[in-house]
Amino acid sequence: MATYNAPIREINFVLNDVLDVGRLAKEIPAFADATPDVILGLAEEAAKLIEGQIAPLNHTGDQVGCKVKDGVVTVPPGFAEAYKLYSQAGWMSLCNTTQYDGQGLPYTLSKVVEEMLCSANVAFALYPGLTTGCFEAIYANGSEEIKNTYLPKLSTGEWSGTMCITEAHAGSDVGAAKTKATPNGDGSYSIEGQKIFITSGEHEMVDNIIHFVLARLPDSPPGVKGLSTFVVPKYLVNKDGSLGARNKLVAATIEHKMGINGSCTCVMQFDGAQGWMVGAPNTGIQNMFVMMNLARIMVGFQGLGQCELATQNAIRYAIDRKQGKAFNGKPEIIEHADVRRMLLTMKATTEGARVLAYETAFWVDVTHHHPDEKVREEAQDWVDLNTPLVKAFCTDGAVELGSLAIQVYGGHGFIKEHGVEQIARDAKILCLYEGTNGIQAMDLVRRKLMMHNGRLAQRFFQAVRNELNADAPLGWITRPLGRAVDELESTTKFLIESFKTAPDAAGFGAVDFQRAFALTYLGWNWLRMIKAAAQHPDEGFRASKKATAEFFITRMLPQVHSLLGTVRAPTESLMALEAANF
Amino acid sequence: MATYNAPIREINFVLNDVLDVGRLAKEIPAFADATPDVILGLAEEAAKLIEGQIAPLNHTGDQVGCKVKDGVVTVPPGFAEAYKLYSQAGWMSLCNTTQYDGQGLPYTLSKVVEEMLCSANVAFALYPGLTTGCFEAIYANGSEEIKNTYLPKLSTGEWSGTMCITEAHAGSDVGAAKTKATPNGDGSYSIEGQKIFITSGEHEMVDNIIHFVLARLPDSPPGVKGLSTFVVPKYLVNKDGSLGARNKLVAATIEHKMGINGSCTCVMQFDGAQGWMVGAPNTGIQNMFVMMNLARIMVGFQGLGQCELATQNAIRYAIDRKQGKAFNGKPEIIEHADVRRMLLTMKATTEGARVLAYETAFWVDVTHHHPDEKVREEAQDWVDLNTPLVKAFCTDGAVELGSLAIQVYGGHGFIKEHGVEQIARDAKILCLYEGTNGIQAMDLVRRKLMMHNGRLAQRFFQAVRNELNADAPLGWITRPLGRAVDELESTTKFLIESFKTAPDAAGFGAVDFQRAFALTYLGWNWLRMIKAAAQHPDEGFRASKKATAEFFITRMLPQVHSLLGTVRAPTESLMALEAANF
Repeated sequence: MATYNAPIREINFVLNDVLDVGRLAKEIPAFADATPDVILGLAEEAAKLIEGQIAPLNHTGDQVGCKVKDGVVTVPPGFAEAYKLYSQAGWMSLCNTTQYDGQGLPYTLSKVVEEMLCSANVAFALYPGLTTGCFEAIYANGSEEIKNTYLPKLSTGEWSGTMCITEAHAGSDVGAAKTKATPNGDGSYSIEGQKIFITSGEHEMVDNIIHFVLARLPDSPPGVKGLSTFVVPKYLVNKDGSLGARNKLVAATIEHKMGINGSCTCVMQFDGAQGWMVGAPNTGIQNMFVMMNLARIMVGFQGLGQCELATQNAIRYAIDRKQGKAFNGKPEIIEHADVRRMLLTMKATTEGARVLAYETAFWVDVTHHHPDEKVREEAQDWVDLNTPLVKAFCTDGAVELGSLAIQVYGGHGFIKEHGVEQIARDAKILCLYEGTNGIQAMDLVRRKLMMHNGRLAQRFFQAVRNELNADAPLGWITRPLGRAVDELESTTKFLIESFKTAPDAAGFGAVDFQRAFALTYLGWNWLRMIKAAAQHPDEGFRASKKATAEFFITRMLPQVHSLLGTVRAPTESLMALEAANF
Repeated sequence: MATYNAPIREINFVLNDVLDVGRLAKEIPAFADATPDVILGLAEEAAKLIEGQIAPLNHTGDQVGCKVKDGVVTVPPGFAEAYKLYSQAGWMSLCNTTQYDGQGLPYTLSKVVEEMLCSANVAFALYPGLTTGCFEAIYANGSEEIKNTYLPKLSTGEWSGTMCITEAHAGSDVGAAKTKATPNGDGSYSIEGQKIFITSGEHEMVDNIIHFVLARLPDSPPGVKGLSTFVVPKYLVNKDGSLGARNKLVAATIEHKMGINGSCTCVMQFDGAQGWMVGAPNTGIQNMFVMMNLARIMVGFQGLGQCELATQNAIRYAIDRKQGKAFNGKPEIIEHADVRRMLLTMKATTEGARVLAYETAFWVDVTHHHPDEKVREEAQDWVDLNTPLVKAFCTDGAVELGSLAIQVYGGHGFIKEHGVEQIARDAKILCLYEGTNGIQAMDLVRRKLMMHNGRLAQRFFQAVRNELNADAPLGWITRPLGRAVDELESTTKFLIESFKTAPDAAGFGAVDFQRAFALTYLGWNWLRMIKAAAQHPDEGFRASKKATAEFFITRMLPQVHSLLGTVRAPTESLMALEAANF
């Protein structure tokens, strides 16, 4: 079985030595008590519960999976008890507003806990994860009455939540959704339709499940501009907060999936279920995106968690496993060059991605709470730019690292009991949901590069260049990183231009560009990590950071140029090929 | 469910227009009747059986899997009937010698059939596949008596075969094997020990299973030089060919795996089982490699089959599936640039890999049967060079393309009923067994580059350059391909040199070098395909080849330079990092 030890030293290093998370307590009055010590202490507390109670359910959750019978969904053994432990200990409400039974702590801390939870058991993590998403969506746009009715119990996890968006014919094309919402005349609506791929759509772990549903009013225009959002509880809620009648909705079936078997993925049938509108009519797509943007960052953290799980298990196996002798005479397989190549790929990816992910979370806190509007504006630019990068890079990385972990284990990696093949299976969904990684790339190229006259990417180029004025001994990082930033910037200009006249050419290169952008971002992270590590008291830690940075700079960063080369390659004949001739 | 249509037009194109398989009938007397028409006709016959009877078992084979109880293994529904159909129709004996009930047809044809079988159902394909391996091993080194006893029934598939090599502590390090063979004094040996990961180790589909077992004589030296090979039947065979007592061996258990669930992977316990030596004492490792080299090519074909399956299903889905509108106004997702990027990656990989694989099979036929010794020598060089390339590139490609197919399907790709997630799961084992792809890379760098003073790679560079003297209109291929070959050659020299003084530096770059070599080989294949396609009567086919070649040359071939750059990057500090500091 895969095992999990929370990487507290690394988390501390990134939060405090690389990113200076202490700025939150210093600059944001609401976080005055959330000092680095408090944040780290809480992370350590969470780690104990996650390592001890939730990681051990990962393998059985995969093997046993979820069952459905007559609309009743059974989750794997131990999940209900663990959910209770986790929610009652307050880990779900960490960063929610104190107004609705939250603890008002930084979002950054909640994401650190998210990373750990998603290493330990990503299928389990979806039950709290979707609940948080539902909380955020209602919090942003719900009426006072709706907020008071649902938010306190969603905040603590006493109730759980879902997002009901996708329909069989409406996946990436959300605007094709057909689910109807007909006014009942009493302020409520009658919801009719079928939603698919509904994570945590039905289970018995909590007393009530709150569905956040995208549906169409009778007189609405077609497409995305005619969608509205509704809160639709499994059990109706009486004025006094007690639960009333069962609503007319049911889990028609659950899906059988490649992975995340511990998470129930339901087909939800709404047969005239009673719901209440959240936000204004026909603003559903905007309302949904409040939650969706944070959900994309959350999925990035799911990927980061799986990257860490793959990496630490592969390292442990390679240190333990003996096969023959390496050139240096030692029997452990970690002494073989090719095994080191794989492990360093995993370390360089995971540790670099962690800085990207944590920094994004940090900026989310700033956008929400910083007293200075100008600082909030800058923070919002970073969040907008980073969201597709975090989502796509961390999740592509999770699949790649899951596959590499199997390769490090050799044939044993293919056997279920060793637990690493589960990573490759669990992680693949992360590249698909909350917008496929191809859609993230289009978001980056079509929207984020264009926003505010290109200001978002310019902030990034400037920030990296500010860091390049380094001491000469760091030239081995700063020179190649400078070249990467230069080519990234010129390709950015090329894309902005070509998108105006040949959008498909930009579309063709979007995924490669996205990866090149993320790798350059990781180059910046490695530069900052090397600077910060110089002060670290542990010699072994410094040596590890140095070797991993060298690996990244000489073997991964150069891919930027190869990727950006393809972005400029011609596409006319590729787009002209008739579908029938493929 | 994934469906499969044998790509007969493409197979014909590669065999006849690109590779001129007619040379076999013209130059090799034994193959005088195996004209291109005969080969294609037989491939079409095989395709009917494979599409109609074996492909439909792929999904249920995955879902139901194999079971073991009291040493009796049950295969998935339909497998036994399909195995009988397949073997009785003669598809297993195609290229075996007529001396032992084979049909004496080209190995190349048998591999074309293998590709199709491995597209349709790679788990099923392992039952015939291992039987062929066992046949080859006994044929190469068995005594007349052993050959007469076992080969006719292995040839036709009336009995099936295994390779019993791996032990729990002896995977990549074969020389650590501990299974003992003690002489019984009557010419037979008593085999004691446990072998793991034994594909087709036990089942009831045939009357007898012949195990080819690597074991150690009592007085043998340690390591690989003390291993011998033995034939150990499930049921002892009487002088008259009838079956005698059950031998003392049993499937102790079967493994639960990420994929190929229809193939039983057994832990085989030999408790004093009676066996007979094949070949001389202590030559087991050489005897095994007769089979292993062909097995590696076979695994390459398994990968090719899975590449084709992923590619054709993704294309069909992208043509059928409608989601919103692309920039050209069409609703099918194949009109989106990023979907085309994925599909063209899949086509460029699969079609290019097919030429590599078929050409390797062609050279195997030449080594075995060509009357001219000099031609056989050249052919052997190609087989030696190509074996790691075919094995590693086609199987890495299968995993990548399985993952891309899921991505093309979006969220639906993650759902089992659609059948493409099975490709990603089934294909991963191909990167691990018969030598991990890292071991293939070390075979390429440590052995193949060094053999005959570097002659193997020189043949390749020369062959590509011969093809570069093309008409000017093909400069868009020949110029970048020429640059790739030049850098590949200089890096080859660098590796040969550095291996002498710093073997770990060469080991660190081996996998990247292997991929760069394979991509350059595919560049050569695409050049040859474009030349051959110019004569093709179908305009749509020509357009498809042109666009796919352009995609490969502008977007995949450039990776060669990025990969070779990493091969030359320094490794000292990466090797010096203490294991504990990872």
